[in-house]
Amino acid sequence: MPATIPPPRGFPVAEFESRMVAAQRLMQARSIDTLLLTTEPEFRYFSGFHSDFWLSPTRPWYLLVPAQDQPIAIIPEIGAASMSATWVDDVRTWPAPVPHDDGLSLLCTALREVAVRFGTVGVPMGPETHVRMPLGDFQRLRDRLTGTKFVDATPIVRALRMVKSEAEIDKLRYVCGCVSDAFEAFPNLANAGVPESELFRLFRSELLRCGVDHSPYLVGAAGAGGYADIIKQPSDAEVVKGDVLVFDTGSVFDGYFSDFDRNFCFGEAASEARRAYDVVYRATDAGLAAVRPGATTSELWQAMAGVLDAGGSLGEDVGRFGHGLGMQLTEWPSNMPGDDTVLQAGMVITLEPGMVFGAGKLMVHEEDLVVREDGYELLTRRAAPEMVVID
Amino acid sequence: MPATIPPPRGFPVAEFESRMVAAQRLMQARSIDTLLLTTEPEFRYFSGFHSDFWLSPTRPWYLLVPAQDQPIAIIPEIGAASMSATWVDDVRTWPAPVPHDDGLSLLCTALREVAVRFGTVGVPMGPETHVRMPLGDFQRLRDRLTGTKFVDATPIVRALRMVKSEAEIDKLRYVCGCVSDAFEAFPNLANAGVPESELFRLFRSELLRCGVDHSPYLVGAAGAGGYADIIKQPSDAEVVKGDVLVFDTGSVFDGYFSDFDRNFCFGEAASEARRAYDVVYRATDAGLAAVRPGATTSELWQAMAGVLDAGGSLGEDVGRFGHGLGMQLTEWPSNMPGDDTVLQAGMVITLEPGMVFGAGKLMVHEEDLVVREDGYELLTRRAAPEMVVID
Repeated sequence: MPATIPPPRGFPVAEFESRMVAAQRLMQARSIDTLLLTTEPEFRYFSGFHSDFWLSPTRPWYLLVPAQDQPIAIIPEIGAASMSATWVDDVRTWPAPVPHDDGLSLLCTALREVAVRFGTVGVPMGPETHVRMPLGDFQRLRDRLTGTKFVDATPIVRALRMVKSEAEIDKLRYVCGCVSDAFEAFPNLANAGVPESELFRLFRSELLRCGVDHSPYLVGAAGAGGYADIIKQPSDAEVVKGDVLVFDTGSVFDGYFSDFDRNFCFGEAASEARRAYDVVYRATDAGLAAVRPGATTSELWQAMAGVLDAGGSLGEDVGRFGHGLGMQLTEWPSNMPGDDTVLQAGMVITLEPGMVFGAGKLMVHEEDLVVREDGYELLTRRAAPEMVVID
Repeated sequence: MPATIPPPRGFPVAEFESRMVAAQRLMQARSIDTLLLTTEPEFRYFSGFHSDFWLSPTRPWYLLVPAQDQPIAIIPEIGAASMSATWVDDVRTWPAPVPHDDGLSLLCTALREVAVRFGTVGVPMGPETHVRMPLGDFQRLRDRLTGTKFVDATPIVRALRMVKSEAEIDKLRYVCGCVSDAFEAFPNLANAGVPESELFRLFRSELLRCGVDHSPYLVGAAGAGGYADIIKQPSDAEVVKGDVLVFDTGSVFDGYFSDFDRNFCFGEAASEARRAYDVVYRATDAGLAAVRPGATTSELWQAMAGVLDAGGSLGEDVGRFGHGLGMQLTEWPSNMPGDDTVLQAGMVITLEPGMVFGAGKLMVHEEDLVVREDGYELLTRRAAPEMVVID
């Protein structure tokens, strides 16, 4: 059973109202009449609409966030019931799927209503975004709305979503606590001689038992003395003594993600792997020591890189040492040179130093934290300082 | 434990080669030099690359499928290890994330190599597709490749992916069998007086125990005498006697989805709900009777609609009575008027008749099948002819 009481699901209306006000201020400063949002997290962030149904690629969903008015949801009829439980009043539906006009006419009409003052529609089109509607429909939309400008709204959604409210942090703290419980229980459940795929299933069950809603992300690999791939799906090969296993999970509670990993060794770990574990562990400590409002993500990277280099790292292939976390497994910013995002209280990030050692083996650590006025609050329970041995 | 032996993971190289040959024939007929694919299922279909890592929105992944050559994967460095286990030889990486040039230069270079003969790149841009890369990068790509035409490749990927190989069908049969086991076990595990969210966790655990890799999709709702929403996330409210509960799950094995539901009643079901159950059950029978190569999806819809109308259906809000199934929870085609897809042996589809009854209650059934030369093979174990009562 979960060790702590889960926070309430959803958010009070005031949370959405304050998100709207903040977005509208940024839109007005950029002369944008409305945001046009098409992806699940952005739709959910402003509307509160939450459903696994986004996994079906069949139907587009549209949310307009006007600079001077309430949001307008243009959605498939199948979503009307769930949508009626949100704070959004202006909901327009069509009997999707209708391939020859899947909400496009409704969307055009609504954009003509709200994109009046500047004739400018903000669409996230920068790094880490995509437009979740058929590209053909997007081109038709632009053709129909002659005179309307479509500009990049990534900076707006990025700035808002990077800083979490206390209600969001409560969900993140809870899910990270559940996953910490499951990681601590795992050594008592696992054995050598079991197929990798079976260990994945066993760990996913334990995560559920510990209180997560589910674990959409679980990757990992076992290998003699270390692993060479940290985004791997399970094989059906048996884990054997001497293997080092990493599990990295994005588990969710009420739509908010954990994202951290743990390393285990079946039987005694090779000394090379234990040394690498110690290096990434100390790199995480160095990263933690650097976290405070005003520090930059590049400085976090630097703090971790210093320990990794001194510890004999042969490189890394992740491209960064951690990232933002929240409604998605990974969010802006990136802890890497040149990112230079200035940390603010309320940002939730992961620290994820990794290194190559020996003959192409990897060792990656990860912890999740929220930036606080006086430094940080760890959301995960810190990994053990020495690799956990499963006998 | 799973009742049957799981099929092997992955596919032999011959499977990918035959997909390539089929795609190249369709491309040549349309004067397309190469496909440019950006989404997980399309990338996996041609390359065999399989990872949960797509859940992270940070990095774009590109696969080129040239009309006259082998595929080219342009991917973040973090994917190189997993990619090396696939049949794709031409793999080009960059140390993503690199926001100012996230693979775009590599992609331009590769497109200049392969889009030579007709100067035409096929990108899926029709119904049920989207382009998974920043829209700004797509626009920059078009600007750099002046003279290159970007045309819709939806008909190509649709035609190929709709008809499954026996190796694909083996995975689908296995996962549908596991989910059938879990649905049959569920009544012995559930009780009234338990929060909805707890029933979701319990059912997800049972699905794992029955052999699925995981269950990215699980929606459902309980309500007195019926439910009003079939894409709902769980609440923390307790299920009580008299509630009708629907679970609809997309569970996966080796990247292939089940998609079907089951209806349960806690204690005795209201007669209205039992009648509606009988109607959708018989509608499914009518749909099954209509399945054969040469029949159209519109005819399937008609067969089911006839029973629903005669049974007093007050409408439906799903927009169709079933759809394609495979690497995604829902795929082309749709069982609905005007779709008119001609069924072929090897197509895997769901039949999903639904109806509104009483005061806005819904009743939805779903079964999964593969079209066979002599009719169909059911992949799910048929639901009970009367609603299962949980005492």
